[in-house]
Amino acid sequence: MADRAPEPLPALAALDPAGSFAARHIGPRPDQTQAMLAAVGHPTLESLVDACVPEAVRDRAPLDLPPAADEATVLRLLRERAAANEVLTSMIGLGYSGTVTPAVVQRTILENPSWYTAYTPYQPEISQGRLEALINFQTVVADLTGLPVAGASMLDEATAAAEAMTLLRRAGRAKADAVFVVDADTLPQTLAVLRTRAEPLGIGLHVADLSAGWPADLPAAGAFGVLLSYPGASGAVRDHRALAAAAHEAGAAVVVAADLLALTLLEAPGEWGADVACGSSQRFGVPLGYGGPHAGYLSVREGLARQLPGRLVGVSVDADGDVAYRLALQTREQHIRREKATSNICTAQVLLAVMAGAYAVHHGAEGLTAIAARVHRSAQTLAGWLRAGGVDVVHDRFFDTVQARVPGRAAEVVAAAVQRRINLRLVDADTVAVACDETTTVEVLRAVAGAFGVPADSTDEGRALLDDAGPDALPAGLRRRTPFLTHPVFSAHRSETALLRYLRSLSDKDLALDRTMIPLGSCTMKLNSAVEMAAVSWPEFAHLHPFAPVEQARGYRQLIDELCTALAEVTGYAAVSVQPNAGSQGEFAGLMAIRGYHHSRGEAHRDVCLIPSSAHGTNAASAVMAGMRVVVVACDEAGNVDVADLHAKVAQHADRLAAIMITYPSTHGVFEAQVRDICAAVHDAGGQVYVDGANLNALVGLARPGRFGSDVSHLNLHKTFCIPHGGGGPGVGPIGVREHLVPFLPGHPLVDTGAQGPTVSAAPWGSAGILPISWAYVRLMGPDGLTRATEHAILAANYVAARLRGHYPVLYTGADGLVAHECILDIRPLTRATGITNDDIAKRLVDYGFHAPTMSFPVAGTLMVEPTESEDQAEIDRFVDAMIAIRGEIEKVATGEYDRTDNPLRNAPHTLAMVAGEWDRPYPRETAVYPVPALRGRGYLAPVRRIDQAYGDRNLVCSCPPLEAFAEPEPAPGAVAHVPDRSEGAPDDLGTTADAVPAGARA
Amino acid sequence: MADRAPEPLPALAALDPAGSFAARHIGPRPDQTQAMLAAVGHPTLESLVDACVPEAVRDRAPLDLPPAADEATVLRLLRERAAANEVLTSMIGLGYSGTVTPAVVQRTILENPSWYTAYTPYQPEISQGRLEALINFQTVVADLTGLPVAGASMLDEATAAAEAMTLLRRAGRAKADAVFVVDADTLPQTLAVLRTRAEPLGIGLHVADLSAGWPADLPAAGAFGVLLSYPGASGAVRDHRALAAAAHEAGAAVVVAADLLALTLLEAPGEWGADVACGSSQRFGVPLGYGGPHAGYLSVREGLARQLPGRLVGVSVDADGDVAYRLALQTREQHIRREKATSNICTAQVLLAVMAGAYAVHHGAEGLTAIAARVHRSAQTLAGWLRAGGVDVVHDRFFDTVQARVPGRAAEVVAAAVQRRINLRLVDADTVAVACDETTTVEVLRAVAGAFGVPADSTDEGRALLDDAGPDALPAGLRRRTPFLTHPVFSAHRSETALLRYLRSLSDKDLALDRTMIPLGSCTMKLNSAVEMAAVSWPEFAHLHPFAPVEQARGYRQLIDELCTALAEVTGYAAVSVQPNAGSQGEFAGLMAIRGYHHSRGEAHRDVCLIPSSAHGTNAASAVMAGMRVVVVACDEAGNVDVADLHAKVAQHADRLAAIMITYPSTHGVFEAQVRDICAAVHDAGGQVYVDGANLNALVGLARPGRFGSDVSHLNLHKTFCIPHGGGGPGVGPIGVREHLVPFLPGHPLVDTGAQGPTVSAAPWGSAGILPISWAYVRLMGPDGLTRATEHAILAANYVAARLRGHYPVLYTGADGLVAHECILDIRPLTRATGITNDDIAKRLVDYGFHAPTMSFPVAGTLMVEPTESEDQAEIDRFVDAMIAIRGEIEKVATGEYDRTDNPLRNAPHTLAMVAGEWDRPYPRETAVYPVPALRGRGYLAPVRRIDQAYGDRNLVCSCPPLEAFAEPEPAPGAVAHVPDRSEGAPDDLGTTADAVPAGARA
Repeated sequence: MADRAPEPLPALAALDPAGSFAARHIGPRPDQTQAMLAAVGHPTLESLVDACVPEAVRDRAPLDLPPAADEATVLRLLRERAAANEVLTSMIGLGYSGTVTPAVVQRTILENPSWYTAYTPYQPEISQGRLEALINFQTVVADLTGLPVAGASMLDEATAAAEAMTLLRRAGRAKADAVFVVDADTLPQTLAVLRTRAEPLGIGLHVADLSAGWPADLPAAGAFGVLLSYPGASGAVRDHRALAAAAHEAGAAVVVAADLLALTLLEAPGEWGADVACGSSQRFGVPLGYGGPHAGYLSVREGLARQLPGRLVGVSVDADGDVAYRLALQTREQHIRREKATSNICTAQVLLAVMAGAYAVHHGAEGLTAIAARVHRSAQTLAGWLRAGGVDVVHDRFFDTVQARVPGRAAEVVAAAVQRRINLRLVDADTVAVACDETTTVEVLRAVAGAFGVPADSTDEGRALLDDAGPDALPAGLRRRTPFLTHPVFSAHRSETALLRYLRSLSDKDLALDRTMIPLGSCTMKLNSAVEMAAVSWPEFAHLHPFAPVEQARGYRQLIDELCTALAEVTGYAAVSVQPNAGSQGEFAGLMAIRGYHHSRGEAHRDVCLIPSSAHGTNAASAVMAGMRVVVVACDEAGNVDVADLHAKVAQHADRLAAIMITYPSTHGVFEAQVRDICAAVHDAGGQVYVDGANLNALVGLARPGRFGSDVSHLNLHKTFCIPHGGGGPGVGPIGVREHLVPFLPGHPLVDTGAQGPTVSAAPWGSAGILPISWAYVRLMGPDGLTRATEHAILAANYVAARLRGHYPVLYTGADGLVAHECILDIRPLTRATGITNDDIAKRLVDYGFHAPTMSFPVAGTLMVEPTESEDQAEIDRFVDAMIAIRGEIEKVATGEYDRTDNPLRNAPHTLAMVAGEWDRPYPRETAVYPVPALRGRGYLAPVRRIDQAYGDRNLVCSCPPLEAFAEPEPAPGAVAHVPDRSEGAPDDLGTTADAVPAGARA
Repeated sequence: MADRAPEPLPALAALDPAGSFAARHIGPRPDQTQAMLAAVGHPTLESLVDACVPEAVRDRAPLDLPPAADEATVLRLLRERAAANEVLTSMIGLGYSGTVTPAVVQRTILENPSWYTAYTPYQPEISQGRLEALINFQTVVADLTGLPVAGASMLDEATAAAEAMTLLRRAGRAKADAVFVVDADTLPQTLAVLRTRAEPLGIGLHVADLSAGWPADLPAAGAFGVLLSYPGASGAVRDHRALAAAAHEAGAAVVVAADLLALTLLEAPGEWGADVACGSSQRFGVPLGYGGPHAGYLSVREGLARQLPGRLVGVSVDADGDVAYRLALQTREQHIRREKATSNICTAQVLLAVMAGAYAVHHGAEGLTAIAARVHRSAQTLAGWLRAGGVDVVHDRFFDTVQARVPGRAAEVVAAAVQRRINLRLVDADTVAVACDETTTVEVLRAVAGAFGVPADSTDEGRALLDDAGPDALPAGLRRRTPFLTHPVFSAHRSETALLRYLRSLSDKDLALDRTMIPLGSCTMKLNSAVEMAAVSWPEFAHLHPFAPVEQARGYRQLIDELCTALAEVTGYAAVSVQPNAGSQGEFAGLMAIRGYHHSRGEAHRDVCLIPSSAHGTNAASAVMAGMRVVVVACDEAGNVDVADLHAKVAQHADRLAAIMITYPSTHGVFEAQVRDICAAVHDAGGQVYVDGANLNALVGLARPGRFGSDVSHLNLHKTFCIPHGGGGPGVGPIGVREHLVPFLPGHPLVDTGAQGPTVSAAPWGSAGILPISWAYVRLMGPDGLTRATEHAILAANYVAARLRGHYPVLYTGADGLVAHECILDIRPLTRATGITNDDIAKRLVDYGFHAPTMSFPVAGTLMVEPTESEDQAEIDRFVDAMIAIRGEIEKVATGEYDRTDNPLRNAPHTLAMVAGEWDRPYPRETAVYPVPALRGRGYLAPVRRIDQAYGDRNLVCSCPPLEAFAEPEPAPGAVAHVPDRSEGAPDDLGTTADAVPAGARA
C-alpha cells in the first residue's frame, strides 16, 4: 500500500455527528450518484430535479423541520418521549386487552426484517412462508368463529364490523333505504365507525337494546342485517340464539362481533346462526400499542366468500401439481372493479395477523383454553369478591369483564385504582367496569378489590372463591362443544426451539427487502431502518391502552403532535390526522372531510367525484363509500389527464361537483405540468381537490400538495415515511387538509382528537404504536436529508429508465423524456411477438434473485419499476442487468432459438426439485438457476414452481389436500407440513358456488 | 368434527401461569417423553434417572431456588433490576469506551438467533458466513495494527496481553527465569492479569517507567519482551520508536497494547517495531455491558503465526477449487497438544468480533477516521478549556484521555461531574482523568468543564478552541500514513440496505440452532430462548462501565449475587465467582485457587495435577498455566478412570500432589460410579479435586459436585445455563468452590469482588453483560424445571443410543448399557471396512440438513452426540433417521453398489452448483440433495463443497485470491465478494515459514 500524507484534522465544531443517517438511508454513495447522473445526462441532482419537476408545482422554500439527528440522539429523544408515557395495568377493556407476546414471536416476527420488510404476497411463489402464516391465521378465525371462510385480516374490529354491514347489504341486494340494526351493547368505537360508514351509503342504522329479544317497534322486516356482540361492550355474554333465529326469520342476516379468546369457551357463532363474524385478534399476542396496529378479522358462512372484502389466502397447486398457497379471488381487487369494488381495503394487517396466528401455534387449543379459563375465573373471582363486599355486580353472565355498580362512587373507585397503578373503566358516575386479561394476576385482582374497598381473599368466603372450582359464569348451554385448532400445525411447534425453526423455515421461503430490491411502482419499498423500528417494541409504547387517561400518554401525544406538525410542513397543509390506519382509510376520511365541508355549506347535493382513468381503483371505491358518484376523466396518450375532457366534465357536472381525485405525480410516474390548472378548474366550479399521496416520495422537499392546489391528501406512512409493509400491512394513511377542512378531520367518541369529523378507525390515533417509526425517520433525515432522498428517488427511476430504454419501451415520460420516481416498461410488443408476458418476466426475475416490479398497473401488460432512493447503484445495476439478460432470453424466443412454450421464461421460477430431478428441457439446468454468473453461491431459490391461480379459485379452500398430499414435496427439515383443515366446510360448498371465477378474469 | 362435552373450569388458584416456560424449553411434549421412555425401556423419567445416576453421587435434596416464573414475570423482575442501575455518561476510560452500536448491527447480529445460536465453525462448509465475518474482523485488526496475522478474537485486552507475553516466551525459547518488562503506564487490570499469569510460569514481571526510555537499571539483556501501551493508561501517547529499537537490540520482542480507534490516526505499531499487538475491539460498536463480553485482539508479525493462541480463520479452496474459508492451523488445538498447547483458550468472543467487524464495514476507513478525529478533538478541546481555566493538564500528547491536576480537589471534581450525570476517573487525590469517546458531545464537554469550574466556550478563547482547526495533540511524526480497510468489503455496504443484505447473505450460508439440531457432544447446544436474551440489549445493562461507582450498579450487583447464589445451590459449593469469562479461564482460575490454597498452607511444592487420559486437552493446558506438572491417569476399556492406575499415581506423587482434574459425567458420556472413591483418594493424599463442569447439564438437580467430593469446578454458562454460543463465544466460565477455597476466588485491582485471589479477567465480573441470560433461565425454570431439563437431557441421549445402537456401536456405557447425556458412536469399524470416515458422515449430514456431531473427541474416529433436552422427539427422530439412512449408504459402499471414492458420502456436502452443472456421478442428483423425501422443499444447501484443509494451511493467508478468483463462484445477489486484502504481507511470507503445517498433522 502506498503511503499517504495525513490530512490536518478539522476542528471539533466542524465534526458534528448529526446528519450521518441520511447517508445510510440513501443507497448510492456520492461517486455512485455522480455515475448515475452521468447516465441520465445531468451534471447535478439539482439540474435533474429542475428538469423533472414542473416549475408550476415546485416549492423552493426549505422544509421547516428540526435538523437531522444521529441514531443515538434519536434513540435518546424517543426514550424521553417513552418515559413521558405511564404504563399502568390496563383493565379498561372495550376491545383492547393486555396480552403476553411470546418473546420468540416478538423477536422472530415483530423485530425481524425478514417478516416486516416483506411486501403483499401478490407474487405467491416467493411468498409461501407468509401465505402459510396467514393460512394459520385464517384457520384460527374460521375454527373459533365456526364460519368456514376467514379473510387474511381487516384493519380493526370497528372497520371489520362496517365491512360486515356493507358486505351483507351487497349480498342481500338491499334497497337503498335499507336498515341495519345494531345492538346497543356494542363497543362505542364500533358504533361510531358504523355510523360513519352507514350514512353516506344511505343505510339506516338502528341502534336498539336487544337484550330482551327483537323489540316490537323495530322494523325487522326492512332490516338486511343485525349486529350482535358476544360478549357485549358491557361485558355481558348473552344467549343470542333466539334473536338470531328471529332475525333470519325476518330476512335479516346476523353479524356477530366476537372475542376470539372467549370463543375457546363459548359456542362458536357459526354454530348458532351467525352469517358473519368480526372482531379483533389483538389479544392473541399483539401489543396494545395505544390503539394499534392490530389485525381485525372477518369470517363468513358458505356462499358469502365472494363478497369478502380484502385479501383471502387460498390453496392451489404449482406447475408440478404440488400444494402451494396464493391469494384467492383476486378479481375483487379494486384496480379491476374500481367503483364496483366490494370495499376499498387494500393494505390489511398482515404482520399482526401473522403474529396472532403464531400465538395460536404457540399455545394450541389447550393453551388458549387455559388462558381463557384463567381470564374468566379472574373476572368471576373478582365478581364474587365484589358481591361478598356488598358491591352490586350488574351482569350474571360474562366472560372477562365485570361491571359493578357503586352509586356516586365510580370516579372515586377509578381514582383509587389508579393509585394502585391500575386503569379501570369509568362507565358512568355510578358504574365501573373491570376487564381481565391474560396478564391479570391475583395480586392485581386484590388491588382492584382494594380500590372498591372490599376485602378480597382476606375472608374465608373470599378465599373460597379463589380456591373452589364452582360453576362458571358463562351462559348455560353455551359452553363450546366443537373442537378447534385440530390441525397438526397447532401442536407440532409447542417447544420454543420448534417454533423458532418453523418461523425461520417460513421466512426462508420468502423474498423480502432484507434480501433483494423490491422495485414496486407506487409502493415505495425503501429502507425500514433498524433504528426507526427500535421503539416499537419498548413497553412504554407497546403497552398503552388507547383509552388510557391522557395524562398517562403525554409521550405519545407529544410524539403524535410533532409528527403531525412535520407532516403538515412537508405537505403544505394546515393540519394532519393520523387516525386513518391505511391508505384506503385515508382516502375515505379525506373524501368524508370534503363531504362534511359541502354539507356544512348547504351543498349536500355535491356528489360527483372526477377520477382520471389512470387512477388507482381504490380512489373510485373510496368515492363510492363516501357517497359520491364517480365520473371518469380521460387521459391522453402521454398518460396525462386529458385537460379538454376534464374541462368538459367539470362543465357538465359543475353544479354537483364535489371533488376531483388525482395522484401526483401521476400513477403513470409523470409530473404533470398542468396540475395547477386542473386544481383551479375544479375549485372554480365549487369542487374540492383531493391529491392522492401515494407518490409523495417524489415530492417531499420539492413540492407541497397543499400549496399547489390540493385541499386534502392522504399520505402513506408505509410508503414515504418508512413504516415497513409487513407483508401487506400495517399501513398508516394520515390525511392532511387545508384550513377550511380542519373541523372535518376524524373525531372519536371516547377521546378528544381535537376535531369533530366522522370516526373512521377504532382507535383515536389509528395505529399509534408504529408512529415512532415515521417520527424517527423525519428526525434522522432532517429537512435536507428528506429532500435529498426525494432527489435520489427521482434519480434512481430515471437511471433505470435510461439504462433500460434501449431494451424495453418506457411508457409515459415528461419533459426531456424524464420520469418521476418510477417508470413503466411496456412489455406488450414483446408479448405480441413472442407470447412472453410480463408475468413470465416477473417469474423469471425470481430466478435472478429479484422480486418482480408491479405488474399491469396502471397499464395492463406492463411492468412498473420504482427503485426508491435506498437502493445503491450496485443493486440497481444488478436488476437492470437481469432485465437486459431476460430481454436477451426473449429474443431467443423471438428467433426460435428457444421453444415458445418450453423456455426458461415460461418455466420460471425454477426450483431445486426441478434441477435435481429428470431434465428434458431444451436448455441446460445451469441456465435455469444460474442465468448470470454472479448468481453462483446464491442463497435463494423459489420453493414452488409457478402457481396455478385458476385451479385455486375453481377449487376454493374446500379442496384442501389431506396431509398425505404434502408427503412428497414438503416440508423443509424442521418444519411440519401444514394443511389447513377445513373439513367442516368441505367438501362441496364453495367450489360449486358463484365464488368460482374463470381463470381468464384474473389480473 | 365431533362434539366434545365441555369440562368444568378449574378454580383460579389452580390456574397459576407460572411454570409454563419449562414446557417451552424442554422439547418433547408429554406424549413424546413417554414414547422416548418406552424406546429406552423405562416407564418413567425417575426410573431412568435412578438407573443412570449412581446412588453414590445422587443428591435427592430439592434445589433451594425461587419457584418458576413465567416470561412476563421474569421480564418484570429484570426490568426492576435494570432500573436499579444508573446509566451515567461514562468518561472513565481505562480500556472501556462509550460507543454507538449501529442499530442495524444490534438487530441483525446481536439480537438475531442466526448469529448468536451458531456454534464454533469447526464445520467450515456450513460456517462460511461467520468465517467471512471473522475474516473481516481479522482484516480490521491486521490493517490497523500493521501486523499481518490477526486471530479471530481473544477474551479481553488483559488476557490478550498475557497471551502475548506467553507467546513471546515460547517463541523466544526463553529460559525459565526469563523477564518480561511492562511499562508502568499500562491499564491496571492488564497489569493484574499479567501478574497472575506470569507468576506460576516463573516469568519475572518488571514493571518500570519507560516514559524516558529504557532505564539503566533494567536487565534488558535478560528480558524476552516488553509491553508498551499506545496510548497509555494515563492517556499519554508516547513515541515508542526508540524504545522499540532498543528492546530489539537487547533481544527483547515488543508487544504493543493499542487502541484500535486511535490507530486510525496514529502510525501502526507494526510500522514502528511491534512484534505483537493486543487490545480490545470493544469501542467498535460493542456495548460496555458492565465489563463484557467484548472481543480482545492479538496480531503478530510474520513468523509468529504458528504461536498465535486461539482461533485463526484462513482462506482455502473447496473440492471445486473455489475460494472457501476455514479455521487454520488447527493442530494447535488443545485436544491434540494437551499440556504442550500454546494456550488454554478455546471459546473466544466470536459474536462480539463479528459485531466489531460489522462496525468497521459500516463505517469504513473514512468513517472510523472521522470518529477518531472527533474523539481526539473532543479531548483536545476539553484540555484547552481546562488550561484556559487555569487547570494543569498533565500530558501534551494524548488521543482521547485528558489527565488534569487539581491538587486536593479531585474527589470534588468527580462528585461535581456525577451531579451532572457524568462519571470521570479519580486517579488520585490530586488528579482526574477524562476519557472522550464516540458518544461525547460538546454539551458533555461543557458539563465536564463545569465540574472543573472552568468556563468552557463561554469565553472567546474557549470558543476559538472549539471552532479553530489548529494542530492536533498527537505526537509529532506519528500521524498515520499507511492506508487501511482498503478492501472493497469496507466500502461496498455503506448504506443500511446494503449492510442488512450483506449480513443476511452471510447468515444464510450458515447452519445455526434456528434451523437445525446441533448434536454436539460436550457442547450442550440447547435452546437460547428469546426471553432470556431480551435484557442483554437494554441500555441499563448494556451501557454501564465496569468501574462505575458501585452505587450506580445496584441492579447488576443484585442480579450477580442472585445468580451466584443459585449456581452455588445447584453445584453444592460455598461460593461462586463469575469473573472467568470462558470455560478455559474458569479452569485456570480454579486451579489457581487450589495453588493459592496450597501456598497458603506452606505446601507450595504441591504441583502435580493428575488428569485422566480421557480429559479434554484444555485441562492439561490449564494445569500447565497454573504452574503444575501434568501426570496422566489411564482409563479402562469402559472409558472410566483406571482406579488402580489412579491409586498408583496418587501414591507415586503423594508428596507433591496438588490436584486431580476430572470431568463428571466423564467425557465419554458416562456416570462413573467410583467418583467418590477417586475424590477421597486424592483428598487423603493432600490433593484437591477439580471437577470440570462441562457436563453439568447431566447433573443439575440430580447431583452436586461440591457434595460428592469436589473442591472446585468451573461451570459453562454457555452450555448448561443457556448463554448462546455466538459462533464461538462469548462464553462464561464461573467457578464454584468449597468454603476453604473462597478466599482464593478472583479479586480485582480496581473493584472489590469480595475475594483476594488472583485477577484472571480484565473486568471484575467478567462478561457481566450476558449474565441476565442465565439469571433468566434459572428463574424461568425454577428448581423443578431445571431438574426436569436434566432428566430430559439424559433421556434424549439414551433415546438416540437406543435407536442407533443397532446401526452403529455405542462406545462406553454405564450400568444397564445406559449413557449419561451424550453418546459416542464408533465409526472406526465402518472406516476400516469401507474407507468412509466420521468426516464423511459429518459432511453427508449437511446434505440431510443437519449440523454434524462432535468428531473424534474424546476418541478419534468416533462421533459424539448430545441432543440436549431442548430437541423434541420429531427432530431427534429426523436426525436418527438421517444417521440410519447414511448407514444404508455406507452399506452400499461396503457391498460395492457405490464406488469407494465417488459416492454420496465422499462427495458430501453437495451444492446447487453441482446438481445444476454437469453430472457424471454414479448416483443421481436427487440422491445428492434429496436423500430422504422429507427434504423436498428444503431451505438449506451448503454454499461450498468440501474444503481442502491442507491447502489452506500450506498456503496460509498469504495466498489470498484476488477479486477475480471470486468472479465465477461468488457471491449471492446483493452481496459483494470479499477477498481479504493482505497485499502487505504477500506474497511469499507465511507460506514458506515454519507456520506451514503438513496436511497429515491435522485433526
